[in-house]
Amino acid sequence: MTKRVYNFSAGPAVLPVEVLEEARENLLSLGDTGVGIMEHSHRGKAFVAVYEEAVSLCRELAAIPDNYHVLFLQGGASSQFFMLPMNFLPKEGTADYLVTGSWAKKAVTEAQRFGNVHVAGSSQDRNFCYIPSDCAYSDDAIYTHYTSNNTIFGTQFATVPDVACKSLVCDMSSDIFSRPIDVSKYGVIYAGAQKNLGPSGVTLVIIRDDLVQQGPTDIPTMLQYRTHADNDSMFNTPPTFGIYIMGLIFKWIKARGGLAAVGEQNRDKAGKLYAYLDQSRLFNGTADLESRSQMNVTFVTGDADLDAKFISQSEAAGFSGLKGHRSVGGMRASLYNAFPVDGVDALIEFMQRFEAEQG
Amino acid sequence: MTKRVYNFSAGPAVLPVEVLEEARENLLSLGDTGVGIMEHSHRGKAFVAVYEEAVSLCRELAAIPDNYHVLFLQGGASSQFFMLPMNFLPKEGTADYLVTGSWAKKAVTEAQRFGNVHVAGSSQDRNFCYIPSDCAYSDDAIYTHYTSNNTIFGTQFATVPDVACKSLVCDMSSDIFSRPIDVSKYGVIYAGAQKNLGPSGVTLVIIRDDLVQQGPTDIPTMLQYRTHADNDSMFNTPPTFGIYIMGLIFKWIKARGGLAAVGEQNRDKAGKLYAYLDQSRLFNGTADLESRSQMNVTFVTGDADLDAKFISQSEAAGFSGLKGHRSVGGMRASLYNAFPVDGVDALIEFMQRFEAEQG
Ligand SMILES: Cc1ncc(COP(=O)(O)O)c(C=O)c1O
Ligand SMILES: Cc1ncc(COP(=O)(O)O)c(C=O)c1O
Ligand SMILES: [Mg+2]
Ligand SMILES: [Mg+2]
Ligand SMILES: [Mg+2]
Ligand SMILES: [Mg+2]
Repeated sequence: MTKRVYNFSAGPAVLPVEVLEEARENLLSLGDTGVGIMEHSHRGKAFVAVYEEAVSLCRELAAIPDNYHVLFLQGGASSQFFMLPMNFLPKEGTADYLVTGSWAKKAVTEAQRFGNVHVAGSSQDRNFCYIPSDCAYSDDAIYTHYTSNNTIFGTQFATVPDVACKSLVCDMSSDIFSRPIDVSKYGVIYAGAQKNLGPSGVTLVIIRDDLVQQGPTDIPTMLQYRTHADNDSMFNTPPTFGIYIMGLIFKWIKARGGLAAVGEQNRDKAGKLYAYLDQSRLFNGTADLESRSQMNVTFVTGDADLDAKFISQSEAAGFSGLKGHRSVGGMRASLYNAFPVDGVDALIEFMQRFEAEQG
Repeated sequence: MTKRVYNFSAGPAVLPVEVLEEARENLLSLGDTGVGIMEHSHRGKAFVAVYEEAVSLCRELAAIPDNYHVLFLQGGASSQFFMLPMNFLPKEGTADYLVTGSWAKKAVTEAQRFGNVHVAGSSQDRNFCYIPSDCAYSDDAIYTHYTSNNTIFGTQFATVPDVACKSLVCDMSSDIFSRPIDVSKYGVIYAGAQKNLGPSGVTLVIIRDDLVQQGPTDIPTMLQYRTHADNDSMFNTPPTFGIYIMGLIFKWIKARGGLAAVGEQNRDKAGKLYAYLDQSRLFNGTADLESRSQMNVTFVTGDADLDAKFISQSEAAGFSGLKGHRSVGGMRASLYNAFPVDGVDALIEFMQRFEAEQG
């Protein structure tokens, strides 16, 4: 079989080999059912067991309180950008948003179609290279929305923002289950699966029951959280294969020791690369120190041509996906849960060699 | 490896073994990329090639004219139920709907949230066991919506309804690419993948460009067809694995001779089972003769207990998914493209034995 390369893609992203191998074994027959995992009816015993295990592992890993629903939706995190205000933000109401990157901005754009958005904090003044600390929240925000990890800009909230608003909403697309989560602090948590949880095409939504109950009934059935909460994510055909893979990932995280253990592994992994960046004279991180992401490490040489040369040589050397997003330029090493620590070691070694060659 | 059983599930449904085998080979590395198919960035060269081949095979198979877009969306066919009226049906406008089953009714429910629905034809009077022929269309319908194959009730339109309305819209979820399609007759064709085209979690939408252009810009970005048409279905992260499998299925259909050849194979396959039902004294089809579906063959013994006994014995004998939907009762054999003809032969033999045993 072809040797796997180190895949630094920001998403869809590297998945654990063990998970891929288990999926491979079940493509033509899930266990001894004689029916492949993708071919099982979502209403049949075999898939319902897959679904139930995924939900129960999810609840166990994040210690999700009973008054929260675990939903598997479609449409990506981008669909949550509008579903949230469509369900919760009335025309005259105000929601607070922390604008810490491009995705947060897109969430604002969609919310503004429905009600008032108050930008309680922003780091746009310095191209989103930091997490703002002095935020000015509204007194009467219906919810407060933030993006825990800014995939493009390599910044991450180190702690949960301290808000008075009872419904904190978080886009955790790029750091969900990379560290412990105190779910009870949130009204809604959502994440597209394609970074830490599986393939693209399934979105994990963890939502408090009082919000589900509050939602309107006069919007399309598929866009009401109630619909999915009342039907165990099976009002219509759910993305069964994605849910299956997410369940395998949950099992894999549990086997690694759960969220606290995985959180430490991630800190160590990213820490190595940041330590190298800090002592390197050629490479520098783009995010402010205290705002650095454990998931997406963004860095530059300061010379766009040299960046391009580095990226092209890294690809030839078997490092995939290191090109940074155009909004930042330079390089981005996405180090999600499944990214192996030896890949970080190999990258650092490669960067050292490249640095030495530049003389 | 576990022997595969005959899977009559209505969806998610049986997929071609050749497709599953190819997918299995590419789970840990797509070709020689060293990155598994689910792990490739949707913006990278490797996945863009997968996407482009899927679109081009789709266009080739159905001879899709240039003024139509091929989109891969999320949210299932159920999301099209509301996206269509949200985009095209103004409050004062009227859309015609043919009500030939539960899915058609759900489409009506969602459309009524936006504008007027005129039911131009219905077969609800006889529990949807036929396709209505005497339909009364509005003069000014903005679009006319119908469901080409009624998965639950085992009925299918033999031909395209002859409507004056320039925008015929069809939910082809359960018979897409099972026979030739004259795309030029339609404004929009949509189908959840999970019957004839792949895993659940991706919806194929074929839409005429003038409709895309007409759509409003003041609804959520993700709900505008324009967004997806303008961005080659990559405004946000598309369901990459589902698109990959769909592409493999298109390739498989092409290898079997294309839609005309597959259409004949399907007619022969279903024809065998219908021929048996017609001569059987125990089993009878539930749909009117001229309305019978080539995809979902619904039948009963007329005795619910005997139906239950048959279903339970069939499961023990390795036939999976024959239980009919509760709205019809009895049995349903879904015979999508990928269902093998020897499975039909085996089922008929089993039914004959069962019938003989009843004395
Ligand atoms: C933080 C964040 N939010 C939202 C999105 C958009 O997610 P999706 O493509 O699933 O709509 C991304 C995707 O990369 C992301 O990183
Ligand atoms: C004809 C038809 N339309 C729509 C649907 C709903 O599709 P989805 O589950 O993808 O929303 C189905 C599902 O079985 C169907 O058979
Ligand atoms: Mg960002
Ligand atoms: Mg440095
Ligand atoms: Mg039906
Ligand atoms: Mg008969």
